[in-house]
Amino acid sequence: MSDATERGGAGSVPSADTLAEWKRAAAHAAVATIPEDAIVGLGSGSTAELMLRELAARVGQGSRVTGVPTSEHTGQVAAALGIPLADVNDVPALTVSIDGADEVTLPRLDLIKGRGGALLREKLIAATSRFRIIIVDATKIVVTLASAHPIPVEVVPFGWHRTADRLVALGARPALRLAPSALSTDPNAAPYVTDGGNYILDCMFGPIPQPDVLAAYIKAVVGVVEHGLFIGMTERVYVGGPAGVQMYDRPRSP
Amino acid sequence: MSDATERGGAGSVPSADTLAEWKRAAAHAAVATIPEDAIVGLGSGSTAELMLRELAARVGQGSRVTGVPTSEHTGQVAAALGIPLADVNDVPALTVSIDGADEVTLPRLDLIKGRGGALLREKLIAATSRFRIIIVDATKIVVTLASAHPIPVEVVPFGWHRTADRLVALGARPALRLAPSALSTDPNAAPYVTDGGNYILDCMFGPIPQPDVLAAYIKAVVGVVEHGLFIGMTERVYVGGPAGVQMYDRPRSP
Repeated sequence: MSDATERGGAGSVPSADTLAEWKRAAAHAAVATIPEDAIVGLGSGSTAELMLRELAARVGQGSRVTGVPTSEHTGQVAAALGIPLADVNDVPALTVSIDGADEVTLPRLDLIKGRGGALLREKLIAATSRFRIIIVDATKIVVTLASAHPIPVEVVPFGWHRTADRLVALGARPALRLAPSALSTDPNAAPYVTDGGNYILDCMFGPIPQPDVLAAYIKAVVGVVEHGLFIGMTERVYVGGPAGVQMYDRPRSP
Repeated sequence: MSDATERGGAGSVPSADTLAEWKRAAAHAAVATIPEDAIVGLGSGSTAELMLRELAARVGQGSRVTGVPTSEHTGQVAAALGIPLADVNDVPALTVSIDGADEVTLPRLDLIKGRGGALLREKLIAATSRFRIIIVDATKIVVTLASAHPIPVEVVPFGWHRTADRLVALGARPALRLAPSALSTDPNAAPYVTDGGNYILDCMFGPIPQPDVLAAYIKAVVGVVEHGLFIGMTERVYVGGPAGVQMYDRPRSP
């Protein structure tokens, strides 16, 4: 990491290379803490892929970790990198999981995830992990969740228009996520389909002061499979930024 | 209906023919109330199929109803009977829905549904209907839900063993539903797969005095798509029994 990159500069927009270096540094710090023989939940997305490379390096050095991927894509990348894999159904619990996030609040470490489309399996893996680590660059830290980004909501394809109606009633402005090749101006564009065969509604809510309450309301909606609010599901966050990597542990519940 | 059948007899077990006649009578009473031009949610299961025949008779007499089926199977049967069909995404709301149930409590008309495997679409249709009618034979009336039957819970196939662990933590004894052709003694038997591509865990809980509380807890579990508790989702029940058809309307909330 160069001095220029490390200093960054408050208010300036970091370059893509700078962001990648911040993420890589966070991934390196997280992977360094993984016990030998750990069963590790493997996140999805660009930051998680940097983590896979760090983890593969440890495997190359003799570490006996086993990975449990949160998406078909992550499973393919991890296998190509030589990381031994297991199915979540074949392990009673995961030692630790490492994943990225779209937004993180301090000090509670609540998250929005799902821009990469793998939120359901990411949440299933998180729910099965004894210790959950999130790695992000410093631009992902926010004061209030959902101010700038939609909350991705995975819904059953059958009757999804009516499920969208029910999310509107909760205050959302939902937009059906389209397949990467689709033009958003095409009325017949194909929807994005998740690994589980569902659709994603990207729901703009505006800032949500009580994410735990909204999370419960969204999940209770008939037709909703899961959503991108991860509340109380993270023990530790590594944040890569201009001053290096900062580590934050979630405070114990009062 | 013969006199002997009508008298039934307290404590005796009704014959299959008697039960079918009770169901048919309830279906007939329900279908008779449907407005002309109504958009009707079409339930699934053996009782709902009797309702389809009653509805088809009305279509044959010139009624202009449109059906919205809750399963692939119901859609096929309804089409074969000549009932015009629509997709739930193409109608803003349904006038009424008619469906069966596995257990019904009085006077609140809370239900267990899902033995037929279509609970997700049945609940999606119910959530989109302005008035929900349930038709059952008298053996389906219970004092407390879940005493005798499991609550079917539709779960994501990915990591379903771990989702089952989380349901055990809620007090359930879950059993994976198997495909109709499978032997329950075969450890490699194929799971039953829902229209939505999910699995069903039949969860014995024993009697549940607060079904609304348990319903919220089950739906909140990561990996649960939907469950067979239908709480506050029914306006009217027609019960076919030895004394004819009884009608029950849900009391207004206090």
